[in-house]
Amino acid sequence: MSDLCRIGILKLGCIGAAPLLDLILDERAERKDIAVRVVTTGASMDPVNCEEATAKLAEMSPGLVIIVSPNASLPGPTQAREYLLKMKLPVLSISDGPSKKAFYTKDEKGKSVVSIPDGSGFIVLPMDPMIGARKEYLDPTEMAIFNAELIKLFSCTGVIRFLQFEVDKLTDSLKAGTELKLPKITLTTEKALEHAGFANPYAYAKAYASLTMVESVAGVTSNACFKEKNPEVYVPAVAAAHEILRAAARLADEAREIEKQNDTVLRTSHGSSGKASKKIQLKEKPK
Amino acid sequence: MSDLCRIGILKLGCIGAAPLLDLILDERAERKDIAVRVVTTGASMDPVNCEEATAKLAEMSPGLVIIVSPNASLPGPTQAREYLLKMKLPVLSISDGPSKKAFYTKDEKGKSVVSIPDGSGFIVLPMDPMIGARKEYLDPTEMAIFNAELIKLFSCTGVIRFLQFEVDKLTDSLKAGTELKLPKITLTTEKALEHAGFANPYAYAKAYASLTMVESVAGVTSNACFKEKNPEVYVPAVAAAHEILRAAARLADEAREIEKQNDTVLRTSHGSSGKASKKIQLKEKPK
Amino acid sequence: MSDLCRIGILKLGCIGAAPLLDLILDERAERKDIAVRVVTTGASMDPVNCEEATAKLAEMSPGLVIIVSPNASLPGPTQAREYLLKMKLPVLSISDGPSKKAFYTKDEKGKSVVSIPDGSGFIVLPMDPMIGARKEYLDPTEMAIFNAELIKLFSCTGVIRFLQFEVDKLTDSLKAGTELKLPKITLTTEKALEHAGFANPYAYAKAYASLTMVESVAGVTSNACFKEKNPEVYVPAVAAAHEILRAAARLADEAREIEKQNDTVLRTSHGSSGKASKKIQLKEKPK
Amino acid sequence: MSDLCRIGILKLGCIGAAPLLDLILDERAERKDIAVRVVTTGASMDPVNCEEATAKLAEMSPGLVIIVSPNASLPGPTQAREYLLKMKLPVLSISDGPSKKAFYTKDEKGKSVVSIPDGSGFIVLPMDPMIGARKEYLDPTEMAIFNAELIKLFSCTGVIRFLQFEVDKLTDSLKAGTELKLPKITLTTEKALEHAGFANPYAYAKAYASLTMVESVAGVTSNACFKEKNPEVYVPAVAAAHEILRAAARLADEAREIEKQNDTVLRTSHGSSGKASKKIQLKEKPK
Amino acid sequence: MSDLCRIGILKLGCIGAAPLLDLILDERAERKDIAVRVVTTGASMDPVNCEEATAKLAEMSPGLVIIVSPNASLPGPTQAREYLLKMKLPVLSISDGPSKKAFYTKDEKGKSVVSIPDGSGFIVLPMDPMIGARKEYLDPTEMAIFNAELIKLFSCTGVIRFLQFEVDKLTDSLKAGTELKLPKITLTTEKALEHAGFANPYAYAKAYASLTMVESVAGVTSNACFKEKNPEVYVPAVAAAHEILRAAARLADEAREIEKQNDTVLRTSHGSSGKASKKIQLKEKPK
Amino acid sequence: MSDLCRIGILKLGCIGAAPLLDLILDERAERKDIAVRVVTTGASMDPVNCEEATAKLAEMSPGLVIIVSPNASLPGPTQAREYLLKMKLPVLSISDGPSKKAFYTKDEKGKSVVSIPDGSGFIVLPMDPMIGARKEYLDPTEMAIFNAELIKLFSCTGVIRFLQFEVDKLTDSLKAGTELKLPKITLTTEKALEHAGFANPYAYAKAYASLTMVESVAGVTSNACFKEKNPEVYVPAVAAAHEILRAAARLADEAREIEKQNDTVLRTSHGSSGKASKKIQLKEKPK
Repeated sequence: MSDLCRIGILKLGCIGAAPLLDLILDERAERKDIAVRVVTTGASMDPVNCEEATAKLAEMSPGLVIIVSPNASLPGPTQAREYLLKMKLPVLSISDGPSKKAFYTKDEKGKSVVSIPDGSGFIVLPMDPMIGARKEYLDPTEMAIFNAELIKLFSCTGVIRFLQFEVDKLTDSLKAGTELKLPKITLTTEKALEHAGFANPYAYAKAYASLTMVESVAGVTSNACFKEKNPEVYVPAVAAAHEILRAAARLADEAREIEKQNDTVLRTSHGSSGKASKKIQLKEKPK
Repeated sequence: MSDLCRIGILKLGCIGAAPLLDLILDERAERKDIAVRVVTTGASMDPVNCEEATAKLAEMSPGLVIIVSPNASLPGPTQAREYLLKMKLPVLSISDGPSKKAFYTKDEKGKSVVSIPDGSGFIVLPMDPMIGARKEYLDPTEMAIFNAELIKLFSCTGVIRFLQFEVDKLTDSLKAGTELKLPKITLTTEKALEHAGFANPYAYAKAYASLTMVESVAGVTSNACFKEKNPEVYVPAVAAAHEILRAAARLADEAREIEKQNDTVLRTSHGSSGKASKKIQLKEKPK
Repeated sequence: MSDLCRIGILKLGCIGAAPLLDLILDERAERKDIAVRVVTTGASMDPVNCEEATAKLAEMSPGLVIIVSPNASLPGPTQAREYLLKMKLPVLSISDGPSKKAFYTKDEKGKSVVSIPDGSGFIVLPMDPMIGARKEYLDPTEMAIFNAELIKLFSCTGVIRFLQFEVDKLTDSLKAGTELKLPKITLTTEKALEHAGFANPYAYAKAYASLTMVESVAGVTSNACFKEKNPEVYVPAVAAAHEILRAAARLADEAREIEKQNDTVLRTSHGSSGKASKKIQLKEKPK
Repeated sequence: MSDLCRIGILKLGCIGAAPLLDLILDERAERKDIAVRVVTTGASMDPVNCEEATAKLAEMSPGLVIIVSPNASLPGPTQAREYLLKMKLPVLSISDGPSKKAFYTKDEKGKSVVSIPDGSGFIVLPMDPMIGARKEYLDPTEMAIFNAELIKLFSCTGVIRFLQFEVDKLTDSLKAGTELKLPKITLTTEKALEHAGFANPYAYAKAYASLTMVESVAGVTSNACFKEKNPEVYVPAVAAAHEILRAAARLADEAREIEKQNDTVLRTSHGSSGKASKKIQLKEKPK
Repeated sequence: MSDLCRIGILKLGCIGAAPLLDLILDERAERKDIAVRVVTTGASMDPVNCEEATAKLAEMSPGLVIIVSPNASLPGPTQAREYLLKMKLPVLSISDGPSKKAFYTKDEKGKSVVSIPDGSGFIVLPMDPMIGARKEYLDPTEMAIFNAELIKLFSCTGVIRFLQFEVDKLTDSLKAGTELKLPKITLTTEKALEHAGFANPYAYAKAYASLTMVESVAGVTSNACFKEKNPEVYVPAVAAAHEILRAAARLADEAREIEKQNDTVLRTSHGSSGKASKKIQLKEKPK
Repeated sequence: MSDLCRIGILKLGCIGAAPLLDLILDERAERKDIAVRVVTTGASMDPVNCEEATAKLAEMSPGLVIIVSPNASLPGPTQAREYLLKMKLPVLSISDGPSKKAFYTKDEKGKSVVSIPDGSGFIVLPMDPMIGARKEYLDPTEMAIFNAELIKLFSCTGVIRFLQFEVDKLTDSLKAGTELKLPKITLTTEKALEHAGFANPYAYAKAYASLTMVESVAGVTSNACFKEKNPEVYVPAVAAAHEILRAAARLADEAREIEKQNDTVLRTSHGSSGKASKKIQLKEKPK
C-alpha cells in the first residue's frame, strides 16, 4: 500500500464533525485504495497530550493529515500543525467558528484575509457549536445526545457530504500524484445546502433554517460556559442551547423526510476504487 | 502522569458504541486523573491495518486497552487481543452480538459459558446492530444518520451510562492500583435500563421497546447484506432496517422527554478528579 | 340465497385479524352475492365452548368456513376443524405464528412441509402477535387499544387487503361452482406489502419496518406471559410490547400518509356484485 | 355451566362499539363465571339475515342478549328485539345516535321520554358515527382504519370502560339471580369521561375535545352518503370525515399519554371470578 | 390621495377575522393605491364605545367601511351600520355565525332570505367561533393563543384569501369608480377551500376536516359561557373547546405542509399597484 | 367614564405585539374600569398616514397613548411621539429591536444609555422580528401565518403576560391618579420567561430556546429584504426565516404542553374591576 494514499486524522478534543470523520471516507469499509489512520487524545486538548498524539500519527507516514479540533487557534492544535508542517506533511484543519482567528488576519484595510502557511488548508464550520459544558448539566449521556443531534443535522443539511467531497478531492489528488490543493474555506449555509441536493424548495428552506438555528447555539453556550458564574443562570441557558439543537436536528430530519416522500434523496456512495457514485431514486443504480 | 492512568482505546471498524467511547470518559475535558489515547483504522478491519494500529497504541504504554469493534471473532480484533495480551496489557473488548462466539463456548452439557484468556474481559452489546451496508443505499450521509440515531438511542436507554460506569470502575481500579476486574458481560435490556434511571414506568417501557426494536435490526441487515443477492429485495430491506432504528431512536427520545417533563433526568457527570457525581432535579447540585 | 354463497366464520378467541374479518368481505354492506354468518365464543378457546359454537355455525349451512383463532394447534380450533371436515365443509384456518405446528410437519430431511387434510387450507400470520395478557396490565381498555393499533397496522401494510383478496378468490370460486383452491400460506412481510400497493419506496420501507417490529412483539409477550413469574419483570415487559406495537402502528400510518401526500393510495372496494374494483387517485373512478 | 351466566351477543351490521364487545367481557380469556356466545351477520342488516342470526343465538339459551347494531330503529334490529322479548329473553340494545328514535318518544309536552318494552334496555352512543360509506373511498382497508381509530378513541375516552361496567353490572345480577336492571342511557361526553378516570384536567379536556370532534363526524358522513349525489362533493366530504376521526383519535391518544407520563392510568381488569379490580400506578397490585 | 381609495375598518370587539384584517389588504406595506384607516374599541362592544369609534372613523372620509365584530345583530354593530348608512357610506359587515339573524329573515314560506338595507353587504363566517370566555380559564395569554390558532387555521384553509379577494374586488371597484357590489355571503367550507388552492386531495380533506372541527367549537363555548353555571362543568368545557381549535389548527397546518412538500402552495401577493399576482412553485415569478 | 381611564393605542404598521395589544387589556370584554380606543393606519408607516391617525386618536382624549410600531426611529412613529408629547399625553412606545436607536444613545464612555423625553417610555422587544417581506413569498396568507406563529410564541413564552403587567401597572396608576412611571425596558429572554411562570425547568429551557431562535429570524429577514438583490438567494432565505419561526412556535407550544401535563399553567385573568387574578391548577379558583 503506497504511503501517498494513507490518510492520517488527528482528533484533538471534539467537535461535531470529528467522531465520524474517518468513517465518512469509507462508509462501508470496502475501499481498496486508501488506508486511514486516526490518533486522538479523547476529549483533551492539553498540549502535552496533543504533542504525543501528533508524533504517533506522523510515525505512521500519512500522505496527508487532517486535524479536527475545536478552536484551532489554541496551543494544542497550533503546535500540532507546526510539527506536521515541519515534517513536510500537508495539513488540513477542520474546526469550528472560533478557529477563524487561526486562519484569517486583517489586511491594511481591515478586511479579513486568509493567512496560513504553505502546505496547509482549513475548513471552518461555523455551524459546529460549542457544547453546554457545565457540570450541573453535561454528563456523558447528555454529551452523547448533543453529538448525535449534531451529526444528524450535519447529515441532513449537506455538511457531511461537503466534508466527503473535500476529502475525496484530496484523496484523488494524492492517488494521482498531482499537486494537493488544500481548501481554505469557511463553510456557509448556502454551500452546505448545495451538497445536500434538495429537490424540494421547502425542504431546502427547512434545512437552511436548521443551519441558522444551530449557528445560534454557540452564542448561548459560550456565554453560559465562559461568562456566567451563577448556576441559576447558566444551567437553564445550556439546557436551552441543547433544546435549540434538538429542534434544529428535528427540522433537518423533516427536510430529509420530505425528500424521501418525493423519492429524491441524493446518495453518493464510495465504490471499492474510491470513486463516489451518484443516484437519486431509491430504485435506480448508483452511477 | 502515571502510566497506570493511561487508557488506550483501539477502534477497529465501527459499531455504535465506538465513535464517542473516548469522550464518554471525560465529557467536558476537565479530568486531571487520566490520559486517553485512541488509535483507529477508520472503517477498516483488515488484519494488516489492525496490526499496525495495535502496535502504535501499545507503544503509548496504556494501563488498559479497550478494543471496540464489530464482531470480535474476526481476525483483525482477534489478533489485536492476542498481541496486547502478549504485551501483558489488560484488554477489554466491546463488541456487538456476533462477537459472542469470540467469548463464549459450550460446556459439555451444551450450555454457553465464558471462555476467554486471563487479563481480558468483554462487553457484548446485542443492541448494537449491523448497518445497512449496501452500496445502493449506504453513502457517508446515510451512514452518519445511522450512527447518530444509534448514539441517541444508546444515550436515552442507559447504554452510554452503563459503558461509563464499567470504564469508570476500571479507571478507579487502575488509579488505586487494585486488581483489575474486567467485566464479562452480555448487556441485557434490563441491565441497560437500570442505568438509564427512569422514574416513570412508561418511560421505562418505551425505552425497553426501543432496545427490543433495535435488536431486531441486525436480523434484517445481516440477511440483506450477506444472504440476499437481488437489489430489488435487499435495498428495501436495508432501508427498512434504518427505519426501524429511526423509530426506535424516536421512542428512546420520547422516554427521555417524559423524564424531562417530570424533572427526573438522572445525570452522572465526571468531576475533574474523575469521580462521577449524581443528580436528578435540574436545579439541584451534583452530589 | 344459494348455500354455496354463504360464508361461515368461526371466531375462537381473538387475534388481530379476527374482529373485522367478516366486515372485510362487505365493507359497505352492499353486496348482493353473499351471506355472512359468524359465530364466536368471545375470548374463550375452551373446547366445550368451541364445540357448541362450531355446531351452531355448521347448522347455518355455509359453503365455506373460515376459522380464525390464536394458535390453531390448540384443542379448541383443532376439534373445530375436525368436526367441520367431517361435515364435508371446506375449512380455511387463519391464525398466528404458533399455529405453524398445526399445519406444517418435518419431512425426512428435516424440512418443513405442509401437512393438512384435504378440504382444508390455512393462512398463518406471523405478524399477529400475542397480546400482553397479564392482569396487572391488561384490562378491557388496554386490550381494545392493542387491537386497534394492530388493525391500523394491518390496514396500512397490506395485511387486510391480502385477506380480502384470498377470501374474494374463494367466494368467486364458490359462486362459480369451481373447485375451491384453499390457500396454504404463511404470510411474509414482502407478500403483505405487495398488497399494500405502495408507490413510494420509503413508504414501503416504513411499512416493512412496521411489520418487522410487530413480529418482534410476540417474543416479548409470550416470554412475559408464559415464562416470567415476577410481576416486577413481566409488567414492564408487557407494557414494552404494547409500546412496540404503538410505534409500529404509527410507522405504518406514516407510510400511508406518504401515499396520501402523493395521491397514490390504492383502493379496492367491493361492488354490489362482489367484484373488487381498483383505483389510485382519489378523484378517479373505481375500475 | 348455568344458563343464567351465558351472555348472548347479536351483532347486526357494524358500529364502532361492536367488533370488540364480546372481548371486553373477558379481556384475557380467564373468566370462569361466564360463557359468551356471539352470532353476527357480518355487515348485513337485511331482515332475513338478522332473523336467522337471532334465532340461532336464542337457541344457545343466553341469560341476556346484547344487540349491537347501527340505527336500532331499522327493521332488522327491531324485529330481533321483538323476537327475543317474545322468547322472554332480556335484551340490551347498544346503538348509535340515530337509534334514539327507537327508544324515545315525545310526551304530550313535546319532551323526549324513554319508551321501550319491559325486559329491554338500551345504550345510545352518539359518539359512534356513521362511516364514510362511498364506494369511491371506502374499501375494506379504509373501513378497517376507520374502526381502528374509533376503537382507539373509545378506549382512551372511557367509552370502553363504560360498556365494561354496564355489562359487568348485568352479569353480576345474572349470577346473583337478582332482578336485572337494564340501563336506559344515552351516553354523554361527561359520563364517558367519568369512566376514563383522568387525573390530569388537560388530559380530560383533550379527551372531551376528542369526543366532541367524533360526534361531528356523523353529520358529514350522513350528508355525504345519503344526500349528496355528486362524487366531486361527496368524496372529499367522506375523506374529510375520516380525517376528523383520525385527528380525534390522535387527541384521545395524547390524553392517555399524559396519564402515562404521570403514571395515573386507571386499569380495571377482570379476575377469573369476573370481578373487576382497580389500580392506578403501573407498579401497584390490582385491588 | 383620493377619498374613493380610503378603506375604513371598524373593529367592534374581536373575532378571529378581525386582528389582521387591515394587514391583509397590504401585506408588505407597499401599496400606493389605497389608504387604510382603522378605529377600534378594543374588546368592548358597548354601544357608547361603538358610537364614538364609528363617528371617528366616519370623520376620516373612507370610501367604504368594513365593520368586523362578533354577532352583528347586537346593538353596538347594529347602530354602527345605521349611522354609517345614514352617512351614505357603503358598509360591509364581517361577522360570525350568530350574526345571521342580522342579515337574514324568513320569507313567507319559512325560507331564509337575505334582508339588508341598500348600500350594505355582509360576510358571515360560521367557522369563526366564540372564545372560551370564562374567567377561570381565559386570561390574556390564553386569549392570544386562541386567536393565534384561529388565524393559522384561517390562513391554511383559504379563509384569509377569501377575505383578501372580496375586499380586493371592492377596492378595485372603488378605484375604478364603478358601482360597488357588496357581497352577501355566508362562507361555506367548500367556498373557503376553493380559495386555499390545494393541489393534493388529501390536503383538501384535512383542511375540510379542520373547518368542520372549528365550526363545532362554538357549540361548546356558547353553551359553557351562556348556559352552564357550574365551574366544574364549564371550565373543562371551555378547555376542551380550545383543544378542538388547537387540533383543528394543527390539521390545517398539516394540509399546508403537504402542499409545501409538493411545491404547490398558492401565493397571491399584492403588488404596489394593488393588483394581486399569482404563483404556485416557490421558484417561479409571481404573475 | 373618566378621561384618565381611557387608553389610546396607535398602531403604525405591524409587529407581532400589535394585532392583539388592545385585547390583552380586557380579554373577556368584561372590564368596567377602562375604555380602549385604537386607531391604526393598517400596514402603512407613511408619515402622512401616521399623522392623521395620531391626530384622530388624540381627539379621543386618552389618558395614555401606547404607540406600537416597527422601528420606532422611523419618521412616522417619531413624529407621532412628538405630536402626542406636545399634547401633554403620556406615551409608551412598544417596538422591535431596530427601535433601540430611538431610545438609547451612547454616553461619553460609549456606553448605551436611555435617552428619551419626559413623559415617554418604551418597551423594546428584540424577539419581535421583521417578516419575510418579499413579494415572491409573502402574500396575505403567509403574512397571517407569520403573525399567528409569533403570537403563539409570545403567548407561551411570557411576552404577552409581560405586556399585560406593564400596561396593567399604568392603568392602575391612571385610575389611582398617581404619577405614571412609564417603563424604559428592553425585554430580555429571562425577563419574558419570568412572566411565563414555568414550573418545569425543561419547559423553561424549551421556551428559552424558542425566544433565542426567534431572535435569530430578524438577521435572516433583514438581510434578505434589504441587502440581497437576487431572488434565487432571498426567496429561500425568507422561507427559511419563516421556518425558524414555525419551529420556534412549536417549541414554545411544547413548553406550554409540559405545564399542562403537570397542571401548572399560570393564568392571570382580569376581573371586571380590572384587577388581575392568579391561579395555577385548572380546578382552583382565581385569586
